[in-house]
Amino acid sequence: MRGWLIFPLLMLFSAVPIEAGEIRGTGDLGVVVERAKGSLQVIETSGNSVLGRIDGLGDLSHASVVFSRDERYAYVFGRDGGLTKVDVLERRVVARVIQSGNSIGGAISQDGRLIAVSNYEPGGVRIFDAETLDPVADIPADYGEGQRSKVVGLVDAPGNRFIFSLWDAGEIWSVGMSDPENPVTTKYRDVGKNPYDALITPDGRYYIAGLYGEDGLALLDLWYPERGVKRILNEYGKGEQKLPVYKMPHLEGWAKAGRHLFIPAVGQHQVLVVDTDNWQEIDRLAVHGQPVFVMARPDGRQIWVNFAFPNNDTIQVIDTRDLKLVETLKPGKGVLHMEFEPRGGEVWVSVRDIDRLQVYDTTDFSMLADRPAEKPSGIFLSARAHRTGL
Amino acid sequence: MRGWLIFPLLMLFSAVPIEAGEIRGTGDLGVVVERAKGSLQVIETSGNSVLGRIDGLGDLSHASVVFSRDERYAYVFGRDGGLTKVDVLERRVVARVIQSGNSIGGAISQDGRLIAVSNYEPGGVRIFDAETLDPVADIPADYGEGQRSKVVGLVDAPGNRFIFSLWDAGEIWSVGMSDPENPVTTKYRDVGKNPYDALITPDGRYYIAGLYGEDGLALLDLWYPERGVKRILNEYGKGEQKLPVYKMPHLEGWAKAGRHLFIPAVGQHQVLVVDTDNWQEIDRLAVHGQPVFVMARPDGRQIWVNFAFPNNDTIQVIDTRDLKLVETLKPGKGVLHMEFEPRGGEVWVSVRDIDRLQVYDTTDFSMLADRPAEKPSGIFLSARAHRTGL
Repeated sequence: MRGWLIFPLLMLFSAVPIEAGEIRGTGDLGVVVERAKGSLQVIETSGNSVLGRIDGLGDLSHASVVFSRDERYAYVFGRDGGLTKVDVLERRVVARVIQSGNSIGGAISQDGRLIAVSNYEPGGVRIFDAETLDPVADIPADYGEGQRSKVVGLVDAPGNRFIFSLWDAGEIWSVGMSDPENPVTTKYRDVGKNPYDALITPDGRYYIAGLYGEDGLALLDLWYPERGVKRILNEYGKGEQKLPVYKMPHLEGWAKAGRHLFIPAVGQHQVLVVDTDNWQEIDRLAVHGQPVFVMARPDGRQIWVNFAFPNNDTIQVIDTRDLKLVETLKPGKGVLHMEFEPRGGEVWVSVRDIDRLQVYDTTDFSMLADRPAEKPSGIFLSARAHRTGL
Repeated sequence: MRGWLIFPLLMLFSAVPIEAGEIRGTGDLGVVVERAKGSLQVIETSGNSVLGRIDGLGDLSHASVVFSRDERYAYVFGRDGGLTKVDVLERRVVARVIQSGNSIGGAISQDGRLIAVSNYEPGGVRIFDAETLDPVADIPADYGEGQRSKVVGLVDAPGNRFIFSLWDAGEIWSVGMSDPENPVTTKYRDVGKNPYDALITPDGRYYIAGLYGEDGLALLDLWYPERGVKRILNEYGKGEQKLPVYKMPHLEGWAKAGRHLFIPAVGQHQVLVVDTDNWQEIDRLAVHGQPVFVMARPDGRQIWVNFAFPNNDTIQVIDTRDLKLVETLKPGKGVLHMEFEPRGGEVWVSVRDIDRLQVYDTTDFSMLADRPAEKPSGIFLSARAHRTGL
């Protein structure tokens, strides 16, 4: 089933061997979510080609993916509560559980042994064995008088911790999983109204949640957890009424370059520059539309930005050296995601409305590859296995 | 030949399948240099076990290793000028060339297509095709009136560049290899007397060379190459006469955590803390001996230090939060190298004189594994494939 069906089609645009189950390295592999089909495309970045497809993954709207520590397996978090473990080398589903009715993301523990999923319904976090997908722990997001909250902004953190936010409760929880039988939960209350998404900085130190219900951001410094959650950037989110907000920005995409954090303004055609030494906003950069993903090239020298509808045919690139716009690209309608190769020389772009997957050189901005894909959205390269918060 | 010979021996201390040539991921693999035997041990970090051995690599004193972009192949740079490509999955030598008489290190280009080797004799850099090891370019380190220099401190940099230093000439050269047929060399002259080693910061921005012949360090900011090389830390190296210098510190091991660079003092029982915003020394930390490797845990929260003879039975750990010593470990005589797993939860340590390879938990400092190895020195995990300067 898995290799030969797609072989004739892939022959047309692949120069490398594409047999499933071959002996090969996994450091240059990746998957692309094809939302409409409920499938993943398996890609490789050495020849920028498509290797094959894995079907049967359910509802992949807003799906995300993490990788096993050996970079062989991808864990796919579907909106329908499906958690699927796929073998990227053999291109097949290894295990699949429907773990809730409505899910919004997941994470893999620092040691690679645990998969956590954050759920809307029933609200909470469920934790599974990465090997088998057997249930390990269930952490209902209970608060107040028998209420249960939707959970968002789930990330992994150093010390085998998972951190997440409770939309309804306005809380941030940190769960230590060093002993999987006995999760140790620390709760931070009254962090702000309706946290809607969060990020962890690449060094695993700062957890930052966006607040839908009020201005500013909630910051937890994991080097000093006893200091609790504080509010930063009190102006953040203010004025989002001035323009309709087409899409809440993805916090996962915030970019840290040196001491600067680049974050999408809510509802504004701006990228904000924040000094992480004092959490003050130091600049606002005018861009083409409402930013969705604001991502740093791995060396921190460039920031790549895509935009919400109706400006989602465009990518802009900012040079962090002088905070100047250096390039505007027009890949086509529906630029949904960008993923840098780990050493930053090339970047993959999904262009949903024209069913294309494109690869660009980040030095001269030339297009290096242009492949068909069915309504591609998220792109996830296996190098994420080695990173915190991805 | 390759799998079954070593199988019975390895059965004794491995719990995972160890057959060579199996289908498996490569993100959790690594190699350990066994200097005396001229061999590599192949290890995996998920079960902290030894998978097998690759023999026939020549003189591996001072050997270093880089990984292919797919994490399947390791390129081994031997002191005897041997460049060997090994297949870590199948555990065999794929290609081997004796490319010079005396070599001191190598690098892999950002795009993964080129391998560069720096040579003492004949002095210069040779560049090879990563696939075949066919020669691509030869860059003799000529200077002055028909003189040729030994080359040291070779690293890769963003934009498919290689940067290196000329020991005899006191120069730093930057070679652009975007067009492999036409290397473009930029030479920085009079950078200081006898550069002996160098590092590039993890973001690929700063190239810093140590100077044997005078005090201070030579800094090239690759974001502003037109500004040339400047001298920083003018006190660096001063006073090394006060104590005998048992071993020049490895610059590769310098650690960046946040805006701080941690560097070994030359000949002193100290680690220096440097602010990379202004390149001023801001602190000196007293440690157990003359530091050799000063390495940051990937999250930047800890600095691990090993020491020169006669203090080479010890590792010390510094918490970067308050610059305080938090742990002193005694792995045994001859601690030569330390390598963090990419997400930082565990660290591998080679202990030459007692022929052991040890793994420690970086949170509670417990020993997680203790494996036999023949005079182990350098440890190289495949995650280096995704990093600049490693």
